[in-house]
Amino acid sequence: SKDKLKTKNRTEGTEGNQCSRRGEGAQVQIPALSSLAVRFFTGDMRRCGQWVKRQVLIIQLLDGVLRGTAQVMFVSNPVSGLLILTGLFLQNPWWALNSLLGALVSTVSALLLRLNRKAIFAGLHGYNGTLVGMLMAAFSSKGNWYWWLLFPNVFLSMLCPVVSSALSSIMSKWDLPIFTLPFNILTCLHIAATGTAHPYFPEALHLQCTAFFFLQLFLSVPVGVGQVFGCDSPWTACLVLLALLLCSPAVCLHALLGSAAGLCTGLALAAPHEDVYSGLWGYNSALSCIAIGGVFYGLTWQTHILSLICALFCAYVTSATSKLMSVLALPACTWPFCLSTLTFLLLSSENPAICRPPLSAVSYPEENRHYLRQLKMSENALSSNFIYSTFSAIRQFKLKLKLPPCVNEWKSKSKISIYQTDSKLWRQMRPLYFLPQ
Amino acid sequence: SKDKLKTKNRTEGTEGNQCSRRGEGAQVQIPALSSLAVRFFTGDMRRCGQWVKRQVLIIQLLDGVLRGTAQVMFVSNPVSGLLILTGLFLQNPWWALNSLLGALVSTVSALLLRLNRKAIFAGLHGYNGTLVGMLMAAFSSKGNWYWWLLFPNVFLSMLCPVVSSALSSIMSKWDLPIFTLPFNILTCLHIAATGTAHPYFPEALHLQCTAFFFLQLFLSVPVGVGQVFGCDSPWTACLVLLALLLCSPAVCLHALLGSAAGLCTGLALAAPHEDVYSGLWGYNSALSCIAIGGVFYGLTWQTHILSLICALFCAYVTSATSKLMSVLALPACTWPFCLSTLTFLLLSSENPAICRPPLSAVSYPEENRHYLRQLKMSENALSSNFIYSTFSAIRQFKLKLKLPPCVNEWKSKSKISIYQTDSKLWRQMRPLYFLPQ
Amino acid sequence: SKDKLKTKNRTEGTEGNQCSRRGEGAQVQIPALSSLAVRFFTGDMRRCGQWVKRQVLIIQLLDGVLRGTAQVMFVSNPVSGLLILTGLFLQNPWWALNSLLGALVSTVSALLLRLNRKAIFAGLHGYNGTLVGMLMAAFSSKGNWYWWLLFPNVFLSMLCPVVSSALSSIMSKWDLPIFTLPFNILTCLHIAATGTAHPYFPEALHLQCTAFFFLQLFLSVPVGVGQVFGCDSPWTACLVLLALLLCSPAVCLHALLGSAAGLCTGLALAAPHEDVYSGLWGYNSALSCIAIGGVFYGLTWQTHILSLICALFCAYVTSATSKLMSVLALPACTWPFCLSTLTFLLLSSENPAICRPPLSAVSYPEENRHYLRQLKMSENALSSNFIYSTFSAIRQFKLKLKLPPCVNEWKSKSKISIYQTDSKLWRQMRPLYFLPQ
Repeated sequence: SKDKLKTKNRTEGTEGNQCSRRGEGAQVQIPALSSLAVRFFTGDMRRCGQWVKRQVLIIQLLDGVLRGTAQVMFVSNPVSGLLILTGLFLQNPWWALNSLLGALVSTVSALLLRLNRKAIFAGLHGYNGTLVGMLMAAFSSKGNWYWWLLFPNVFLSMLCPVVSSALSSIMSKWDLPIFTLPFNILTCLHIAATGTAHPYFPEALHLQCTAFFFLQLFLSVPVGVGQVFGCDSPWTACLVLLALLLCSPAVCLHALLGSAAGLCTGLALAAPHEDVYSGLWGYNSALSCIAIGGVFYGLTWQTHILSLICALFCAYVTSATSKLMSVLALPACTWPFCLSTLTFLLLSSENPAICRPPLSAVSYPEENRHYLRQLKMSENALSSNFIYSTFSAIRQFKLKLKLPPCVNEWKSKSKISIYQTDSKLWRQMRPLYFLPQ
Repeated sequence: SKDKLKTKNRTEGTEGNQCSRRGEGAQVQIPALSSLAVRFFTGDMRRCGQWVKRQVLIIQLLDGVLRGTAQVMFVSNPVSGLLILTGLFLQNPWWALNSLLGALVSTVSALLLRLNRKAIFAGLHGYNGTLVGMLMAAFSSKGNWYWWLLFPNVFLSMLCPVVSSALSSIMSKWDLPIFTLPFNILTCLHIAATGTAHPYFPEALHLQCTAFFFLQLFLSVPVGVGQVFGCDSPWTACLVLLALLLCSPAVCLHALLGSAAGLCTGLALAAPHEDVYSGLWGYNSALSCIAIGGVFYGLTWQTHILSLICALFCAYVTSATSKLMSVLALPACTWPFCLSTLTFLLLSSENPAICRPPLSAVSYPEENRHYLRQLKMSENALSSNFIYSTFSAIRQFKLKLKLPPCVNEWKSKSKISIYQTDSKLWRQMRPLYFLPQ
Repeated sequence: SKDKLKTKNRTEGTEGNQCSRRGEGAQVQIPALSSLAVRFFTGDMRRCGQWVKRQVLIIQLLDGVLRGTAQVMFVSNPVSGLLILTGLFLQNPWWALNSLLGALVSTVSALLLRLNRKAIFAGLHGYNGTLVGMLMAAFSSKGNWYWWLLFPNVFLSMLCPVVSSALSSIMSKWDLPIFTLPFNILTCLHIAATGTAHPYFPEALHLQCTAFFFLQLFLSVPVGVGQVFGCDSPWTACLVLLALLLCSPAVCLHALLGSAAGLCTGLALAAPHEDVYSGLWGYNSALSCIAIGGVFYGLTWQTHILSLICALFCAYVTSATSKLMSVLALPACTWPFCLSTLTFLLLSSENPAICRPPLSAVSYPEENRHYLRQLKMSENALSSNFIYSTFSAIRQFKLKLKLPPCVNEWKSKSKISIYQTDSKLWRQMRPLYFLPQ
C-alpha cells in the first residue's frame, strides 16, 4: 500500500482539471512541455505561488492582489485575476481603479495587522476590498473620477481585514467560510451612514443597466455571472467566465447553471423583466451554485443536485432580501448568497457522498475531489497501522469530550469531524510515508 | 443500592403521568390491563414507537407525520397528533390538508437527505412543515382550494429539514433546541418574497378573526392555545388541549397558564381588544410557558415561577416584535416565543432546582422529572464507585480543557455540563448494573 | 528568578496607577500613609472589596450597586460610582432615582436567581439596570415624577440579569464581554412595545438638548462622555471624568480621546451641528476607545492606535445605526459601541503587542499591563521547569483537540488561548512558588 500511496503523492503536485486524468497514469514521469504549461497556468497555480514566495515583497503583494481579485469567484489564480481585472477596465476604468485600490489597501492593512500570512497571500484578505471599492464606485451618484470617494474607499478597505478576522473567529467554531460578509457589512454600513441625499457621498441604489434588445434571454445568463462585480457588459461577463474556465471547468459550469437557475426563479416569481434580463437575479445564485457545487463540498452528483437546489433557494432569498432591505434603503449586495450558502454548508447529512473537506484544505473542485479520494484511501491504508490506532484513540477521546449533541444527536457532525481529524492525521503522518513535498 | 437501582430501572419503562406514582410500587409485576392501556396511549407512547420501528416504512412515516403534528406543542404522541389534525380539519379542511402535506413533504425530504433517523421518526422534522403548510394557507389571500399554492408549500416544506439541520448545527454548541425557527424563517421568507400585491401568491397578513360576543374573556384563554396553529375556533382549541392532556397534564396546565399570562399582558399594555380576545396575545406565551415549565427544565416550583415570568416576558416581546415586523410587512409568527424561550434556556443559575436535562434526553415533564431524579440517585449510588471515579477524573479533565469562562466565570454552566456527563456516564454504565433494556 | 517573582508577587496587591511605579521599589515594606490612602481609593479598591465581603449583606449590596453604577464606564470602584451618581442627581433627580432603583432591582434579582456571586458584587449585574432605569426615565414623554413608570422600570431591571446571563452563556464561547447589550435589547424592546403614542408609557425619542452658545466645540468633548448616561450637563460630565480619573488615568484619557474622535467624524460626515455639539456623536466612541484602549487589550502603543481607529469606526457605525433604527422608530442606544468593539475584540492578530487578558482576569488598564507582564515573566521563568513541561504537554494536547481552524488557520487565536492557559497555569502554580495571597 505504501507504493500506491507514494504514487498518489507524486501525482499530487499536478494542478487543475488535469489531475483527475493524470491520477491513473502516474507512471509517466516526464510529462510533455505543453501539458506542463497547462498545469502551470491552470488550477490554483501552486507552482507559481511557490516561486512567488521566494521573491521580494512587492511581487508577492502583486500576486496577492491578483489572487484577491479572483477569489471573489472562489478562484485562487493570478492569471484569472488579471483576466477579471481586464474585464472590469472594459466595463469602467474608474470602477476598476477603485477595486484595484480596495484590494491593495485591504491586503496591505492585513499585513500591518499581522494576520495569517498564508491567508493574505492566497488573496483571502483582498477580495472583500475589491468588491468594496468596485461597488462603492458603482453606487456613488457623483459619477466617475470623483476623487473624494477615495477617502471612504480607503477607510472601508482598511477595515475589511478587521471585519474578516472578527467574522472568521466566530465562524471558525463551525469551520465555516466568511464569504463576502465583510463586503456586505461595510458597504451597507457606508450606504446607511451616508444615504442618497448626503452632501459629500450620495448614493444611487439602482445601477443603471443598459437593457439589451437582442438575444436578451440568452445573454442574461453570462451577464448574471458578471453582475457579481456589478458589471452588465457582456464582454466583462465573458472574460470572467474565461477566468473561471482557466482555473476549473467545474466552477465555470456551475456559475452558468446557477445564473440560469436564478433567471428561471425570477421569471417564475414574476419579477420585472429589466431586472431579470440585466442579470440581477443571477449573480447570487451563481455564487451559491459554485460554492456548494464542488468548492466547499466534494463534487458528487448528490452535491451537484444540492447546488442547484441551493441556487433556487438563493434566488428566493434574493427577492425577499432586496424587498426587505429596500425598506431600509439598502441594496441586497450578496447577502442572499451568504445566507443561503451558509445554510446549506451547515447541513449535517449522514450521506457519505455529501461531505465537506476541512476549510483549511479547501481548493478548486478537481483538487477537492482528489483530496477526499486520497483521504479515504489513507483511512483504508492506515486502518491496520499502529500510529493510526493511537491517533484514532485520541480521536475517540476527542469525540467523547465534545458536547453531547455533536456526538449523540448529530452523528453526521462527528463524521465530518472524523474526516477533519483524518485529514490532520494525514498531514501529520505524510513525512513518515512519503518524500517531503 | 444496586437493588434499589434495579427496581428504578425496571420501572423506567413506565410511561406518562403514571410513572411518578408507579415509581414506588415497582414490585407489582403484572399491572392491570386498564393501567396498561393508559400507559400505552399516554406520555410519548414509547411502546407504540418500538412496535412501529418493526413495521414497514409507510407505517413509520405515518407515525412520524402524526408525531410531527403533535411536536408543534412539544408532544411526541401520534394519538395527540391525530386529535390536533382533527381539530385543524374542523377549522378549515384546506388549511389542514396543506399542513398535512407540509408535514409529509418535510419528513420525506429529511429521509432523502439522510438526516438522523431517530429525530425524523420522533417527528422533529415534521412540525415545521406542519406550521409552514398551515400558515401559508392561512395567510394566502387567494382563498381556499387555490391549488397553485401547493408549489411554494411543497418547496418550502422541502427546505424545512435543511434549515432545521443548519440551525441545530449552530445551536448544538449550546445544547439548545431550534423550536419553530425554521418555520419562522421560511414563512417570513415567502411573505417577504411575494408580498400582498403579488400576482401569483398574494398574502393577507391579518388573519380574519370571528370575534365572540359571549364569554369572550373566558374563551380567549383556550383559543390562545389554538392560535398556535392560526385557528380561532374554540372547538379546535379544545381538541388541542385534549391532545396535550392525553400526553401530559403538566403541559396542558402550562399551556393554559401561559395563554392567560399573555392575555393579561395584552390588557395591561392596552392592546386592541379584538386582538386580545382572538387569542393573538396568547399563543406565544403558551408555547414559552410549556417549554420552560417542565419540558426543557426539570419541573420544580422554581422553574414553574420562571415559566410564568417567561410567559409575561414573551407577551412583552410579542407586542414589540409585531410592531417592528409590521414595518417590514411581516407577521410576528412565533418569533417572540423562540427569542424569549431561548433567553430563559440560556440562563445559567447556580440553583440546583433550575437544571436542564441534556437535549438528547428531553421528553415530557413527568419523564424529565423521573430522569433527573434517577440521575441524582445514580450520582449518589456511584459516588463510592471505582469506575465512577475514573470517569469523573475524565470529567474533571474535560472541564479543565473547556474555555475559561465556562469553568471559572460561570460555575453553573459547568454544573450543567456535569449533569450532562453524568447522564452519559449513566447510559454508559447501565449495562454493568442492570438487565439490558 | 524565583526571588524576582516573589517581589513581583508581594507588590501585586498594590492598586491603581501606583502599581507600575511601585513595581521597582518593592523593597519599601511600609509605604507612607498618604500613598496607602491613595492606593485604597484608586484602582478597583480591592482592599475595600475584601473588607466589604466580611460585612452584612446590606453593605455588600450597597457596594455592589455603587460599583454597578461605575461599571457602566468599565470602572469597578464604589467611590467612582458615588461621584457618578452625584452627577446624575445634578442632571435630574428623577432620572437618578430611576437609575438607582434599576441598579438595585437588577442586583437583587441576580441574587435571587443565584447567579455567580463574585460577578454580582463586582457590579456586573448592576450597570445594565442603571442604564435601563436612567434612559427609560429620560425617554419617557410623561415628564418627571410619573410614578407609573416604575412598573416597567422594575420589570425590565428584573430581567436584566436573565438577559445578561443568557448573552454571556453565548459569548463565553469566544471569551467575549457582553457590554451593554442587555440594556440595548431591553430598552429597544420597551420602546418598540409601547411607542410614541402609547396611552400609558409614551416615549419621546429625541432627548431635549440645551445647546451651549459658548465654547461649544470645547465643551462637546467632555459632554460626549456624560452622554453615556444621557446627560448633557457639563457638570455631570466633569464628575464622570473625575470618577474615571480616580480609578485610572488611562481610562479617563481614552474617554476624552474617543469622544473627540466621534466629534471629528460627526463633523466630517456633515452631521447636524446640534447633535455634534450636544455630544451625541461622542458617547459611543468614548466607550469603544476605553474598552479597546487598555481595558480588554493590554495597553501598548499599538492597541492605543487600534482604540483610536475603533473610535472612528464606531462613530461611523453610530451614524448608520441611528439612521437604520430611526426607520423602526428606535433610538441607537449604545448598539454602535457594542458592535464595533466586539468586532475589534475578535481581531486575531499575530502581533504579540495586541493581546487580550482572559476575560476572568480583566481589570483596569494599569492592572492589566501588570498582569500581562507578570504572565510573560512566568512563561520565561517556568520554561525550564518540570511542572511547566507537563502542563504545557496538556496545553499542546488541548490545542490538538481544538477545532482545526482555531489551530491551523488562525495561529493567533491559539496564541491567545496559550496566554489564557498560561494565566491558568500561573494561578494554579502560584502556591508552589509564593506565599499565599
